[in-house]
Amino acid sequence: MTDITMIEAARVRLEGQARRTPLLSSPFLDEIAGRRILVKPECLQHTGSFKFRGAWSAISALSPDVRAKGVIAFSSGNHAQGVALAARLHGIPSVIIMPADAPRIKIENTRAYGAEVVLYDRIKESRDEIGDRLSKERGLTLIKPFDEPLVIAGQATVGLEIAEQAKEFGVEKADVLVPVSGGGLLSGIALALEARAPGFLVHSCEPEGFDDTARSIASGKIERNAQLSGSLCDAILSPQPGDITFPIMSRLCGPGLVVTEDEALHAISLAFNRLKIVVEPGGAVALAAALFHGETLGDTVIAVCSGGNIDGDVFKLALDKFPG
Amino acid sequence: MTDITMIEAARVRLEGQARRTPLLSSPFLDEIAGRRILVKPECLQHTGSFKFRGAWSAISALSPDVRAKGVIAFSSGNHAQGVALAARLHGIPSVIIMPADAPRIKIENTRAYGAEVVLYDRIKESRDEIGDRLSKERGLTLIKPFDEPLVIAGQATVGLEIAEQAKEFGVEKADVLVPVSGGGLLSGIALALEARAPGFLVHSCEPEGFDDTARSIASGKIERNAQLSGSLCDAILSPQPGDITFPIMSRLCGPGLVVTEDEALHAISLAFNRLKIVVEPGGAVALAAALFHGETLGDTVIAVCSGGNIDGDVFKLALDKFPG
Repeated sequence: MTDITMIEAARVRLEGQARRTPLLSSPFLDEIAGRRILVKPECLQHTGSFKFRGAWSAISALSPDVRAKGVIAFSSGNHAQGVALAARLHGIPSVIIMPADAPRIKIENTRAYGAEVVLYDRIKESRDEIGDRLSKERGLTLIKPFDEPLVIAGQATVGLEIAEQAKEFGVEKADVLVPVSGGGLLSGIALALEARAPGFLVHSCEPEGFDDTARSIASGKIERNAQLSGSLCDAILSPQPGDITFPIMSRLCGPGLVVTEDEALHAISLAFNRLKIVVEPGGAVALAAALFHGETLGDTVIAVCSGGNIDGDVFKLALDKFPG
Repeated sequence: MTDITMIEAARVRLEGQARRTPLLSSPFLDEIAGRRILVKPECLQHTGSFKFRGAWSAISALSPDVRAKGVIAFSSGNHAQGVALAARLHGIPSVIIMPADAPRIKIENTRAYGAEVVLYDRIKESRDEIGDRLSKERGLTLIKPFDEPLVIAGQATVGLEIAEQAKEFGVEKADVLVPVSGGGLLSGIALALEARAPGFLVHSCEPEGFDDTARSIASGKIERNAQLSGSLCDAILSPQPGDITFPIMSRLCGPGLVVTEDEALHAISLAFNRLKIVVEPGGAVALAAALFHGETLGDTVIAVCSGGNIDGDVFKLALDKFPG
């Protein structure tokens, strides 16, 4: 299981590989939220999302002979790019299984990072079955997107940085909001903060209709989403929390927050205007929750913007709907 | 005159105030340029541009009784916001004289940071005369945008960071491209790198039709632009290099680079897609030069993206013209 020792070891492996993203803020956002907002822009990470951290953590921990055969991953896009780049930097092949309806830019980028991309139908096919078959045929190691202790340890380095950077800002107590799909990033951050910043409380953030994590945390057991697609927040549409991530989230998280798609688009526009960063819809749900659903939160909120891989048309939609 | 001692002193005053912006990169940009590109995103600085550094440097160096009376500045927008926020954080009043045709967002933001904004006609009126009159009437200290050693020392801290961060990347030799208007940022960076990274050569970057610095460096004397407005690169339309900045640039800079407005828009789109940062046209000219005019440059180019205060409509224009 992932613990602070494993997280610190992942940080050492990531040294000089992952970017230490800054902690951003704007008085304009504080005014909208009625509280202090600090933003951790993982959209500025290599490949445009935090996923590079977990991918590097897992691949760098493989034994050299196993690693040399290559890796395989399934992903709606951000994990795909993280694995593809981490594999390329290790000089090994990668196969990425992606839903056919993933954003064009994510499929193209994954290929451009040197991966072989296999597309599947999100509704009719099981990505797990496809992954298992290809893994066996080629001797590839499966790099799971979230239910894998080494991946969680890599994502947890975001939490280590938050703990250190918040201290520099003089923050001792904060609500930390994190976009959630399978829960790798959230459970990793929760474990890191439990050890390094115990005054911080983490919360899951999800779009309406895909709030499996909030419901699971509330009920104490794993709940599923009724639908599997149909949101602009394509990065965070996992059907349910992970078997490994859920117990961590259940133990360490406060109540989950849920935002509308329009609130996510509004957050994208505000991040453009006020922070000069590019955030994708799924990556913006925590900032949206901090801005528009802060009533149950404390004086200081740290929102993770987990990714920035957004098509230009969706970005323009956000600027058109929320120009201010 | 600004020297490395004054620059190091400015860095101490800026500690905990200015953000240390990261150094970003993307294999996609390297491929387009045919060389390694590192980007220093000062658009992520407070107020969305490097100008906060110089403003803080100058205001923090004033004696308390002089500072208490307040400050005045003239600016097309980015210096305005930097001075307004630095003044507010010092708890003193600020008056900002802005051209009436400055982007709406820059005027609004300057007011929102607490400054009193006075608009003038860029063609018919002299901002210097207006500034002198108001300074005398109210006892305000003029914070010049570039021709002021303390301001240059503040901007120079970008150069100190570049020297340190490039070393972390193992870079010992590089061309450093900097957007230029009056030359405060470029001369500051040039002085910092002369002392801390003597293998680096700095170059001015400007839009076509506003290449006064490139022509001045080439001819060895101060040259003026024929026109004073009419470019999307509103942030960098000073009529000529400064009296203090020009001798520094003339001594330390390699040949200046000039880009078209379309190349700046293309760079904005690529920064959106590949770096997940928001850059304004004037702030994108160095990245555009690195991407599209690298033939005379070496293997590693460091491009400063100096600001990100762009109206949504101009940003959408960049994404529409260069969707790739």
